[in-house]
Amino acid sequence: MQALGLVAEYNPFHNGHRYHLQQARLLTGADVVVAVMSGDFTQRGEPTILDKWQRTQAALANGVDLVVELPVFNAVQPAHRFAEGALRLLNDLQVATVVFGAEHPEWNFDSLVAAETKFKASNFKDYHATYATQFNQQLSAQTGYSLTDPNDILAFAYYKARQEGHYTMNLLPIQRRGNDYHDQTITGKLASASAIRAAWSDLKTIKNTVPAATMNELAQLQRLPSWELLYPILRNQLIQTPVEWLQQIYQMGEGIEYRMKEAAQRALTYADFIRLVKTKRYTYAYLSRLSLYVILNISKAEHDRHQQVPYHHVLGFNQVGQAYLNQVKKQLDYPLIVKVNRDERDGRFNLDYRAGKLYQNFTKVEQDMKHAPIRTVKEITLTSE
Amino acid sequence: MQALGLVAEYNPFHNGHRYHLQQARLLTGADVVVAVMSGDFTQRGEPTILDKWQRTQAALANGVDLVVELPVFNAVQPAHRFAEGALRLLNDLQVATVVFGAEHPEWNFDSLVAAETKFKASNFKDYHATYATQFNQQLSAQTGYSLTDPNDILAFAYYKARQEGHYTMNLLPIQRRGNDYHDQTITGKLASASAIRAAWSDLKTIKNTVPAATMNELAQLQRLPSWELLYPILRNQLIQTPVEWLQQIYQMGEGIEYRMKEAAQRALTYADFIRLVKTKRYTYAYLSRLSLYVILNISKAEHDRHQQVPYHHVLGFNQVGQAYLNQVKKQLDYPLIVKVNRDERDGRFNLDYRAGKLYQNFTKVEQDMKHAPIRTVKEITLTSE
Repeated sequence: MQALGLVAEYNPFHNGHRYHLQQARLLTGADVVVAVMSGDFTQRGEPTILDKWQRTQAALANGVDLVVELPVFNAVQPAHRFAEGALRLLNDLQVATVVFGAEHPEWNFDSLVAAETKFKASNFKDYHATYATQFNQQLSAQTGYSLTDPNDILAFAYYKARQEGHYTMNLLPIQRRGNDYHDQTITGKLASASAIRAAWSDLKTIKNTVPAATMNELAQLQRLPSWELLYPILRNQLIQTPVEWLQQIYQMGEGIEYRMKEAAQRALTYADFIRLVKTKRYTYAYLSRLSLYVILNISKAEHDRHQQVPYHHVLGFNQVGQAYLNQVKKQLDYPLIVKVNRDERDGRFNLDYRAGKLYQNFTKVEQDMKHAPIRTVKEITLTSE
Repeated sequence: MQALGLVAEYNPFHNGHRYHLQQARLLTGADVVVAVMSGDFTQRGEPTILDKWQRTQAALANGVDLVVELPVFNAVQPAHRFAEGALRLLNDLQVATVVFGAEHPEWNFDSLVAAETKFKASNFKDYHATYATQFNQQLSAQTGYSLTDPNDILAFAYYKARQEGHYTMNLLPIQRRGNDYHDQTITGKLASASAIRAAWSDLKTIKNTVPAATMNELAQLQRLPSWELLYPILRNQLIQTPVEWLQQIYQMGEGIEYRMKEAAQRALTYADFIRLVKTKRYTYAYLSRLSLYVILNISKAEHDRHQQVPYHHVLGFNQVGQAYLNQVKKQLDYPLIVKVNRDERDGRFNLDYRAGKLYQNFTKVEQDMKHAPIRTVKEITLTSE
């Protein structure tokens, strides 16, 4: 069986995702679709609108055969680390091709990676906005390309990760279709995930943009998972933790710990908190990821330790995905976690477990312990879309 | 001016407190009444029903002339440490007599203190229930007294603290009047604070039991401050903090950190959490105090450091209290904090500040920064009650 790999957040799973998936299948002629999906928190450090099991269910109902969780230490990261983590798992799962959307699929991304390799700014290792901006200015001057669209940046990151990992899979960028990432209007059957989230309670408006599996879950959503709801926890953590401890947090440094503590002491809402902390140096995404590391109390040492021991946490599959898993599982380099037990909880799965416990503030639903993968039966259908 | 000292939680200030206060004034003929009052958390580790400023207002409106805050590192403690902290401040404030309620004011408490001094159980230093029980059994066998009523235990603690501190003030236990501490029924004008809290939303029932100042504040209370409301914060703290860090928390040890972490991972409510953690060895009060130390992240080292630097945080006064403060302030051993500034916030006042920030989850009201003492004008009245 030949596999096609996707990297996704499915936040939530919508018609654009389904279209992308069908295109990918047509283009590659793959037998099985494997998605590496973020858990309960996104790349930008936000809680997902539906939990990972609900999103897995929707993905399986709409063409994905196997869903594996992208661990939180890769999922909630800037594009390059997100891509590294996802490709590492897809490579181990032996997918032949990874397909992803891009604004400029026609670009020679490998040449951009080569250009970046030359751009050695020793004092900009952390991929802050300042780094991205400077690199992009130089790239634009040298090549004429402007790497500013989030999907192009992610595409670039996949090429870079493939090169650095010496992976042999094909990379296939395809043109994004439908509304722009930033477009918040909903007109037809295709809308951006962020537009759908913004309109989540207006079921009539979003009805045409998402498949039934997503619609059913959104219809039962009581309140939108958000940082505002988590803010009392974050705030207390920042207030009660000494700065010397905060300095141990992954990605904390350069005095931002003092800014965050001071802001938490003053702000009663997350919006106010971010307004007080924000500077040109730090993007909103950087700060919300950092907020997540604080609330999950992820230390630098802990992050590095977990980063070195990847695993495949299986969230769900149909009979095709299961057959594929059986085909590859003996050759996997990384362990397969099918059901989280106490050893996993306190061991390598610990960060994901803790992220799931935080997410329980929204749903009350236990996210991991003894949770078996979702099993569905693939229906053989002939649909045009 | 001769001062009378009281130690109080006023949770909330009710008619029983007013009666007690009037009795104390009559018995001592004091010119001024000084109350050392807990801040926003009680001796049992619970958030107070009204904040410290609201309770100060009620106290000043009903006979107290000067209110000083009992710092959280003394206020949220077993009886003996609570009493130690309170008497230390009242001694520095040069009160002539401390008056307090007791079930058995006729007892010779000094002789009970002498009996305890003989009872040396080297392995029971922490005043757990087991210690109290064993001491009480021996005391009962030796003297016939049974030290089980909370007010008698506290009375005992004042005598002990006076002896250990070599203080010279008089101690005057007076008979408690009205409903029992544990009595939850409300019939007349006197009800226990716990009965009033339990009936807080039933304004008609509690109306006769509290003075107007308390009634006005309770009438505006939206929800009862409780551990249930703080539980998401406590829970996250316990889940996300490594046990090695939890072991640094004041009063944590003997493996209770593992029990608390495990319980937090499973329980979605504070009631369930306590049910899972509770053993015969630990009282409810012990566990809720420990929960507060966890949520405030008070380490053993930090507690010990703060314990050694007492201060007087002035919450409010009328012109009589102010005159008294002027009379004694030059002879005080401990500093006077009249308005909390940034140095106090980050320095000696830090634990109280952090407790106030936690309490902001209930009220949104800044508890300390730049908060001036409440000033009222004492009305000269001739009331029979």
